[in-house]
Formats: sequence, C-alpha cells, structure tokens
Amino acid sequence: MTQKCKVAIVGSTGYGGVELIRFLYLHPHVEITSVISSSTSGVSIAEGFPHLTGIVDQKLDGIDIVKMAEEVDLVFTATPSGVSTKLVPQLIDAGLKVIDLSGDFRLTDGAEYEAWYKHSPAEDIYLDQAVYGLSEIYGENAAGASFISNPGCYPTATLLGLIPAIKAGLIDHRSIIIDAKSGVSGAGRGASLSFHYPEMNENFKAYKVNKHQHIPEIEQVLSDQAGEPVTVTFTTHLVPMTRGIMSTMYAPLKGEYTDQDFIDVYKQYYENRSFVRIREKGIWPATKEVFASNYCDIGFAVDKRTGRVTIISVIDNIVKGAAGQAIQNLNLMMGWDEQTGLNFLPVYP
Amino acid sequence: MTQKCKVAIVGSTGYGGVELIRFLYLHPHVEITSVISSSTSGVSIAEGFPHLTGIVDQKLDGIDIVKMAEEVDLVFTATPSGVSTKLVPQLIDAGLKVIDLSGDFRLTDGAEYEAWYKHSPAEDIYLDQAVYGLSEIYGENAAGASFISNPGCYPTATLLGLIPAIKAGLIDHRSIIIDAKSGVSGAGRGASLSFHYPEMNENFKAYKVNKHQHIPEIEQVLSDQAGEPVTVTFTTHLVPMTRGIMSTMYAPLKGEYTDQDFIDVYKQYYENRSFVRIREKGIWPATKEVFASNYCDIGFAVDKRTGRVTIISVIDNIVKGAAGQAIQNLNLMMGWDEQTGLNFLPVYP
Amino acid sequence: MTQKCKVAIVGSTGYGGVELIRFLYLHPHVEITSVISSSTSGVSIAEGFPHLTGIVDQKLDGIDIVKMAEEVDLVFTATPSGVSTKLVPQLIDAGLKVIDLSGDFRLTDGAEYEAWYKHSPAEDIYLDQAVYGLSEIYGENAAGASFISNPGCYPTATLLGLIPAIKAGLIDHRSIIIDAKSGVSGAGRGASLSFHYPEMNENFKAYKVNKHQHIPEIEQVLSDQAGEPVTVTFTTHLVPMTRGIMSTMYAPLKGEYTDQDFIDVYKQYYENRSFVRIREKGIWPATKEVFASNYCDIGFAVDKRTGRVTIISVIDNIVKGAAGQAIQNLNLMMGWDEQTGLNFLPVYP
Amino acid sequence: MTQKCKVAIVGSTGYGGVELIRFLYLHPHVEITSVISSSTSGVSIAEGFPHLTGIVDQKLDGIDIVKMAEEVDLVFTATPSGVSTKLVPQLIDAGLKVIDLSGDFRLTDGAEYEAWYKHSPAEDIYLDQAVYGLSEIYGENAAGASFISNPGCYPTATLLGLIPAIKAGLIDHRSIIIDAKSGVSGAGRGASLSFHYPEMNENFKAYKVNKHQHIPEIEQVLSDQAGEPVTVTFTTHLVPMTRGIMSTMYAPLKGEYTDQDFIDVYKQYYENRSFVRIREKGIWPATKEVFASNYCDIGFAVDKRTGRVTIISVIDNIVKGAAGQAIQNLNLMMGWDEQTGLNFLPVYP
Repeated sequence: MTQKCKVAIVGSTGYGGVELIRFLYLHPHVEITSVISSSTSGVSIAEGFPHLTGIVDQKLDGIDIVKMAEEVDLVFTATPSGVSTKLVPQLIDAGLKVIDLSGDFRLTDGAEYEAWYKHSPAEDIYLDQAVYGLSEIYGENAAGASFISNPGCYPTATLLGLIPAIKAGLIDHRSIIIDAKSGVSGAGRGASLSFHYPEMNENFKAYKVNKHQHIPEIEQVLSDQAGEPVTVTFTTHLVPMTRGIMSTMYAPLKGEYTDQDFIDVYKQYYENRSFVRIREKGIWPATKEVFASNYCDIGFAVDKRTGRVTIISVIDNIVKGAAGQAIQNLNLMMGWDEQTGLNFLPVYP
Repeated sequence: MTQKCKVAIVGSTGYGGVELIRFLYLHPHVEITSVISSSTSGVSIAEGFPHLTGIVDQKLDGIDIVKMAEEVDLVFTATPSGVSTKLVPQLIDAGLKVIDLSGDFRLTDGAEYEAWYKHSPAEDIYLDQAVYGLSEIYGENAAGASFISNPGCYPTATLLGLIPAIKAGLIDHRSIIIDAKSGVSGAGRGASLSFHYPEMNENFKAYKVNKHQHIPEIEQVLSDQAGEPVTVTFTTHLVPMTRGIMSTMYAPLKGEYTDQDFIDVYKQYYENRSFVRIREKGIWPATKEVFASNYCDIGFAVDKRTGRVTIISVIDNIVKGAAGQAIQNLNLMMGWDEQTGLNFLPVYP
Repeated sequence: MTQKCKVAIVGSTGYGGVELIRFLYLHPHVEITSVISSSTSGVSIAEGFPHLTGIVDQKLDGIDIVKMAEEVDLVFTATPSGVSTKLVPQLIDAGLKVIDLSGDFRLTDGAEYEAWYKHSPAEDIYLDQAVYGLSEIYGENAAGASFISNPGCYPTATLLGLIPAIKAGLIDHRSIIIDAKSGVSGAGRGASLSFHYPEMNENFKAYKVNKHQHIPEIEQVLSDQAGEPVTVTFTTHLVPMTRGIMSTMYAPLKGEYTDQDFIDVYKQYYENRSFVRIREKGIWPATKEVFASNYCDIGFAVDKRTGRVTIISVIDNIVKGAAGQAIQNLNLMMGWDEQTGLNFLPVYP
Repeated sequence: MTQKCKVAIVGSTGYGGVELIRFLYLHPHVEITSVISSSTSGVSIAEGFPHLTGIVDQKLDGIDIVKMAEEVDLVFTATPSGVSTKLVPQLIDAGLKVIDLSGDFRLTDGAEYEAWYKHSPAEDIYLDQAVYGLSEIYGENAAGASFISNPGCYPTATLLGLIPAIKAGLIDHRSIIIDAKSGVSGAGRGASLSFHYPEMNENFKAYKVNKHQHIPEIEQVLSDQAGEPVTVTFTTHLVPMTRGIMSTMYAPLKGEYTDQDFIDVYKQYYENRSFVRIREKGIWPATKEVFASNYCDIGFAVDKRTGRVTIISVIDNIVKGAAGQAIQNLNLMMGWDEQTGLNFLPVYP
C-alpha cells in the first residue's frame, strides 16, 4: 500500500459524516482530503464539533465536483435522502468512486422509492449501477465496484438476523414480524421537539408504525434471498439513549428446531466474517455490547410452546448501521481486509 | 364517609410500597395506620426514602398479624413472590381484607404457578378466594370482595390493549405476538449488576425471553376472554429509564378493519372507565404521557399490506401496573369512585 | 371558600404553563378559566401535550385582555422574558391580579435588567408594584398583593440555602461562590442543537459562566438581606436529566461553627414553613428527593480544615423554581394555607 | 521495536481493567499476556463482559507472582485500595515493573493515607519508590521508571486545570474551591443501592463532601507546585451519566488578568503535550467532547466583577482518569511517543 486512497466526505456535519471521520482518521490506507458541508463551508469542522479540536480541524469545503474529481479517488456521501439522488450521479459522471450513505440508491425500483420516501427517485441508469453494500451478504459484489449504496441501519440489524435462518429453511419467511428499537442519533443532528432532551429523556416512543422507509429495503432483500416476494410487519421505536439498535424478530419455525440449531447455522453462515458474533443458548445481546463498534451480535430463543423463534440482533446504528459498514464496504471494494481501520473494541461501559 | 379505612402496607420499602404511600397519603377515605417492613423495622421509613422526610416519617413496624387484625381494616401486601403465599393466608384467616401486589395469587392453577415462578404455590383454598383485580375488565368482581390479587405490570398493559379487539372479533387471538418494554423500576429496589447504573445506562436489553412469569397470567386471562385456550409469544426488554411500560402487540386481522374501527370499538368498550385513553388515528402513545399516573393509553396501526394490526399500550409500571391499580381496586371494593385519590395528572416532562 | 378564584394561564404551552395546569387542576379554590397561547390558539392543548388528553383538553385561546378582565380574577404569565414587560402592564391596567413567572419584574433597577437580559426593561411604575415572591423570605409581602413577580429557579434554590446563614451571621457574605446545576427543562421547550437528545445525553456542560441573568437577582436579594452590596461568583451547568436544580454553595465561616449550628439555625428559621426541609448532619439532599414536588431540601458540610461551609440546596426547577412557588404565592396572596393544592409527595423513584 | 512488551492486568474485571484491555489490545508495542482476576479466575473474561466475545476471550488467571515474573515484563494493578498495598510490593520484589491504578501509592505520607483511606498504608520503602504519574506535569520522572503510581481521576482533571495558573502566578493558591462532578462509572462495578439504576437515573447527588480521599492527593501536588502547603475545598457529585468528570474550579486572580492571558499561559504550558486542549475565549468544554478518549480539555471565565477566575476542566474518568493515563505512563516509561495506542478520537455523539 504505497499510495493512500484519497477520500472526500460530503455531509461531514451530520452524525454519519463525523463518525466516518472518527474511523477514517486512523485508517492506514486512507487520507481524508476534504470534509464537505454545503451549509457551513468555510468554518472549521471543530467549531461545530469541539471534540475534534486540535485533531481534525480543517476547514469545511463547499461542494465542488470538478475539484473533487481532481483531488480525490472516492467520495462518501452522507447526505440526506433527496440530496444524494442529484449529487451522486454528478460524482459518478465525473469518474469518482462513490459510497452513498443515504437511502436514495437502495431500492432498485424507483416507483417504490417514491412511494415510501416521498421524493422523486434517481434515474434508473444510476439505480442500476448501485451495489447494495450489506457486507456480510453481498460482500462479493463490492469487490471492485465503483458505486456502493450503503444499507440502512434498521435493515442491517434486521437482515443479518434473518437471512441465515431463511436460507437454511429454519423459519417461514411469510410471517415475519420485526419489532425494532433505535437510539435517538438515528434521527440525525437536526433539532426538533420530538428529540428535545426533556421530551425524549425517560420516554419510550413508537413512530412511523408500518410507514418507515426501511420497510421496502428489508422486503427487497428478503425477497431476493427467499426467491419470492416477502412482506414483513415492521415497527420502529425510539429508546432514550444515543446509540444502538435492537431488532427483535419473530417467525414461525418450519420444523422442531432448537436454539442450538440456530446457533450452529448462524455460526457457519458467518464463519469467515469478522463482525458478526453469535451468542450462546440462553444469552441475548444488549446494545451496549456493540457500542461504538462495527459488530452485529445475534441471539436466539426458540419457543416450543408457540412454534416460533425470537431472534435478537443488535448493532451500533452509526457504525455498523452507517459509517462503519461504509468503511467495511470501502475495504471490500479495494480488496483490503474488511477489518482494516475498524478493529476497535466496543466502548464499555 | 365518616370513618376512614385503616390500612397497613407490608413491603413499604419496595417501590410498590412507597408508591402506595404516595397516593394513599392523600386519599380522602384512607388512613395509613402502619407501614411494615420485615427487614428494616424500627427505623423511620424516611431514613431509606429521604424524599419522605418530614411528610411520612413514621417508624417501620415488623409483621404482627394479631396487631394488624386489631388495628387495621385492610392490608396491602407489596411483598415478593414466595412471601405472599405464606403471609396472605394468615391475614385472611385473621379476618383482614387483603390486596396482594405479588404474583402469588394471580394464577388459578397452582401447578402452573410452580412451573413459571419456581416456588411452591399457595393452597387452593386461598387461590380460589382471590379476585383478579384487572379493574377495567373484572371490576364488577371487586365490588365487595375481601381479597384481591392485583395484576402484574406487563399483563395490565397487554390485556387492556388486547381484550376489546378479541371480544369484538377484530383480531385472531390464535396468533398474538407481544413485544414488551419496561423501565428498570420494574425490577424492584434490589441492587444487582444488571441494574447497576453504568451497565444499564445507554443500554437496551432483552431478558427472560419466552420465560417471563407474566406469560401464564396473560394467557389465563386471554383464554378466559376468548373462551378457548390462548397461547402468546411474549418478549420482555429493559429500557434505560425508570418508569413506564410499552406493550407493542401484533395480531392478524379477522376482516378488513380500519384504524377507526379499532378506535371506535375501544372507545365504546372503555366508555365509562376513567383511566383508559384511546389515541386518534396515526397517533401512538409514549410512556412519558402516563408517567406517575394511573392512565393506560392505547393506539393502533392497521396494516393492509400484511393484514395485521399493531396495538400499542402504555402504562406507568409502578402506578397502573402496581400501586395505582391496587388503590383503584380498593376504591371498587369499597364502592368509592374509582378515581378517588388517583386523579393526578401525569408528570410532564 | 364559596367562590373559586378564576385564573387564566398565559404561556400554557411552555413547561411552566403546563406545570401550573398540573397543580391548579386539582387546587380546591381555583378554576382554570382559560389556557392561553399566542402561538397556537385554536387547537386543543392536549394536541401539543397528549398527556392531558381527556383530562384538560380545552382549546387554547389567544391573548384578549378585555375578555380576561371580564372573565378571570388573576392571570399567571408564564411568558418569555421580553414578552412580560409589555403584557403584564396591560393586565394590571385592566385591573387583573398577576403572578408573573418571567424574569421581567424581578430586578428593581431597569438598567440592571437591560444589562443582563439584553431587553428593554419594563417601566418603573410597574417594576415598583411588583412584589418579589420568594415565599419563605418575603411571604408576608405577598398577602393581599395584586402583582407578584415569581423568583427564578436558580435564585430560589440559592437564596433559600444562603439567607438563614447570612442573617444569623454564620458566614461571610462577601466571598460567596455558587456552583449551580440544572436539569434541561430549565431551558424551556424550544428545541435547539444544545438540547438535542444525542448532544445532551451522557453529557455535562457549563454555560453562561459569569453571565447568567439570575446573578443580579441573587445579588439584589442577598444585598437586601445583608444590608450592604453583595456580589457572588455564580456558575451554571446542565445535567443530563429533565428536572432538578442543585446549588452547591461555598462561604467562609465567621466563627467556629459546626454542622449542627447550621442545622439548628435553619430549622428555626424555617420552623413554620411547609416546604423547606433540613437534612441531618452528614446527609445531603439529592435532586430526585424533591422531584415533581414543591420542596426545597438543604444540607451542610462544615470544613474545619479550610474554615468554609458547603451548603447544598435542591429544588425541582419547574415546581418550587416556577409553577409550584407561583401557586404558593397565590395561596399567600389569597390568605389560604401555603400548602393548598401543593401537598403532593415527591415522585420517587 | 522488535519485541513487544508483555503485560499482565490484575483486576481485569473492573472498569479500569477492561478499559486497559480496550486500548492495549490495539497498542502496537504491547502484548496482553495475562488477564487476572482473583475473584473469577478460570472463566473467560468475555463471560462477564460479553462485548469482548470473540475478540478477547482468554481465561482469567488467578494471581501467581512467580508465573508473572517469568512471563511478563510489566503489571498493571487495577485493584481496589487496600489490595495494592500488599500486592504491589510483592510484584516489585519479584522484579516486575508496575503501574498501579489504585490510590495506595499516591500519597507520600503513610499517616495521611491512613487518615483518608481508613486502611493501613504501604511500607515507606515502597511508597518512596513510586513515581506519581501525572503525565503532563511529572512526565520526565516516568522515563525509565519501574514503578508508577497512576493519579486519581478527580486529581487529574483538577491538577491539569490548576497548575499552569499557579506556576504563572495568575491565581492565589491559598483560596481554591473545586466543585467536581463525575459519571457513575467512577464508583466501579460493584452494585449497590446508591448506583441502582432507578435511584441514580434522573438524579444529581453530592457525596463525601469534604471527605473524599482525593483531597490529600490534590493538596500534595498543589503544595509541591506552589512551594508551600496548600489546602483546598473540594466537593464531589454524581451525574446521571456513565463516563466523564468536570472540575469547576474557583480562585482569586492575583492581578487584572484576562481570559486570553489564561489561554496563552495554558497553551504555552501544554505546548508539546498531545492530550491537553485549551478552549478559546467564551467556550467551555463539555464532558462528551472527551468521551472514551484520553483528552483533557480546559476553558476559562475571568470575572472582573468578583476578581475571580472559573476554570473548567473535563476528562473521561476511565481513560485520562485511569486506564488511558496509565498507558500514557507506560509510553513515557518505555520511551515511546505518549500517544502510542491512545490516539483515538472521542466518540461523539
């Protein structure tokens, strides 16, 4: 690795962007050439994020495609949905590699995107180029790719928790219920009454019930894996904490399987993957056990009484659910070990 | 009401006991004659609970059945499971009215109790006398009763959220999944590593998956209401907050029902009840909206795509889930308005 | 008390306003005639505060002085600083009694107000009429008053903690340092980045160091009590919690006084007051011990090594620091027992 | 660096021990040879700390001095006060290098230790060998040392915040008041009622006022720096958060100094140090800005009105206040760059 990969981060003043900086700053093969924010260009990034003072305090640039094309190899777009639809095509056309953290290129069907996101979709020509970067499932597609669409936080926790059981025929994919819970950072850095500290502290809320834009993403991937259309019931809740997602998933068993059957299937499925950890029988992961790390931890509870299994999957929504997986995708894209620059232990307690 | 009802509270140093004191202290028809703790008798209750300093700082008594029989009319037993089995029969035999907040008299079948609670059950002769005090459902049984078994916190939130839909035939009771979340006070006041602040803060955990002792209580009542055996999948989680329970419940629709159908059925079902509030379409209750109050708030999300409804029910676990409902039961037992001494607004924020 | 006192609450959609509703709703001598919000008139208050659903869901009115003058006896103005300066004079001129919860009438010197608040002050003619409502200190002035300026949250905790020691000559008032900490609700209901949940959670911040507008209020009262000008060093911090203020205060001892001397002096000073509680030697109050109540709890630590005392005073900032004390002032103004409608126990845990 | 330094960690199941593992696991020059816990030897460390599953799940060893002397170069003793007094001398006598994280070797005067810690002190012969490892102040002493006593968390935040001002003559060291606040992890991993989640959540508490064992440590160092005996008033509080310490410090100015004077003096004093960051005028650090990192951030507020300065210093109590500084000391001891293995950005949000 004689030459470092030069990257720009667009959307550096959001939580996804600043988490990219946390990891990429120490990534041995990457150089952060430019941190970009359309809204606050010209000021030091450390002004809005004092924790970066004296470490990363370069000035925020505005978006300048020509300049990026000259100076960097790859752009991370940690931009809101509706912004990436327009920005990413320009970056691609300028010959830049792109890893997009928005939801704008995850759904292959533009009409589906419009129905759930309430924005106009990107053009099909770009949607078609996007490689869906759920690393443990579609990692081989990432190798050598030049445009990766990074998965959503809820889909990451959910899909990693469901796919091995579906592929192994342990569960019936036609009756899956997903009860998901997220820390508040998932809502981004924009202040609003719902996330105002006194409103959110000591509170537990459901939101967007049956309406969350991650539903079609989950269904698209599950359908691909199951080989037939899959619909799911999916509920999202906010937990009074900053980071972490737990997906609690319910599915009917297709046979008299035990906890150990699930454990064995999942351990084998994720055998060569660094970031998925399977809990032993009777032990379920808690969100704090993956805090600030790229791990996804999964546990099981088979219930003979009801013929169902409960699968519990946790991630840090900003890491494995956003910036961490984006870097994992970069590693896979470039042919580096997937752990490069990501091998930090969870912060505990 | 010329003469006040004299009550003793056994287990005054737990969260259920101290919450009974908070409400009963201002109850117009009640006099707290004795606060009892077997472990710390002799010291002022305000020593362990400084928030009571100068308000309720009477000395804690030990358990003395004869004395209670002479001095009080009714005993609240906020004692741990396994203690009430032995204590309550003595109180009943001594002619005292009892409202028991433990789980020891909720299950009518002693064998079922033993299977889930891992303690020996109470004798059938006492189990048979217990009136199950889910106020909004079995309130008429409470009138004039002398021994009430107060429901569990999870069952209260869950059953109030499910029963009207089952009775009205809106949902199929054979395939119910309940994803429940509780604040940490539900675990009681006993310190342990799991509930140590640095372990529980910024953390979300599942526990006792498929094993929680409230499962048979929920199933017993649902079976009674449905007229046939009902089994449910039930998962419990801990939220990093002190108070509050949310039950998120999933069931298949039995027809093409709308949110409004649910709203109408529930509003009618709870028409004359003070403490159940039904949210309008597209609005779901949050736990903070019932904090420190006796309310149970319920909202709905019908999903045509999957043919299921999601029902969301919240309570304060220490109030409607314990002390508040116990006092509501006292009111019903004595023929007082059910709101007496309970008509406090939720504390917000 | 045959006729209830009819009140209007202006600013009903802030935390102070909604807390007034929580207490006044159950106040035996008060009727809430009108809840007023200039910004959201016409909609039900329960729309913005769902915890009030079915209890207090009257429509919010706009400000109409003539209508108020006809319909109510007294107005609580829980309006922001800079709004009350203009609104309160109109209410007074219309013959209404007023209890103002803003800071606009606390400082007797308009120039001082302008220097710290950065707004134009109210006219002197109105400033002169305002009775400063620190109930335990100036309660006698409230009796029969028609316009009360309710103290700030920090000044309430601080002044109740300092005045008895100054009056008794235990401490040197010329070298007082106050280190104050507040829950986030003190910042009001307006969302902003500083109070965005992910920014404030698991965080402890200092703010407005030496610049807080409560400094001149504290100094004005201490100067009045000491009989000579007093200046203090005063620092404010935000604690990741919703409610509660602690003032930790440092002062040089004027003699070889002990903890017990302080306890004795304070117990005597507050002998007939319901809401101040003095802790015994070696015990200091925590904010949770007054949560949601009108109490102010105070403890002491004399340090012979350094010749200083540390005085610790806690209140709930929205109750004793705002709405609760406002109602206490109403009670004193009307000649009712000061505990009327305020005798709720702290909510614990 | 051909050969790695082999280390053992005694007390691996406490928060200090597990944080040592988090950093040392990635330290380029260190190999963790043994993780030791006297209480739970024989089981995998990941059993008690599931976040380590699959990363560090070696078995916990018991204490075996002979084995350690053979296998490792250096021992970190993250053991409770009173344990290190006996253990560390044995390690030293066995020829091992030691970095002790307890308080047992910080005070040079055994009698002082006994007075504050209520344990028998270590023998003078060992106390005399201990190098006090406040890296930015006494770093030169660490070079080549074989036994370092790692500073306390409160002293670290406090001393780094005070010393440059004292050395430069900006403040009068005879009248310093320190108001300190800590996250709950500072109390260790032992569960007890005080730290039980429902008791500590939404609560702010003072504790050990004027009695904290870190007082003599602070005074010893300040006396050394000032060249004459210094006493301080020092109060400790618990904040409802897991990590972080803020010391808010008050001292009289010795002249008409400005904020900028302080900023200049501190920037110069810490010019070549990696982990101390000075905030600009009018900006004060918050604890979250150093979360999970080894930074100490400091800000100032000079108050002309009172002739005092308020100095605000924050650290992560488990990192710069314990494990991080211990590794910084290791680096200094071994002649490595002080940032080695510690150059992680704070985790934000």
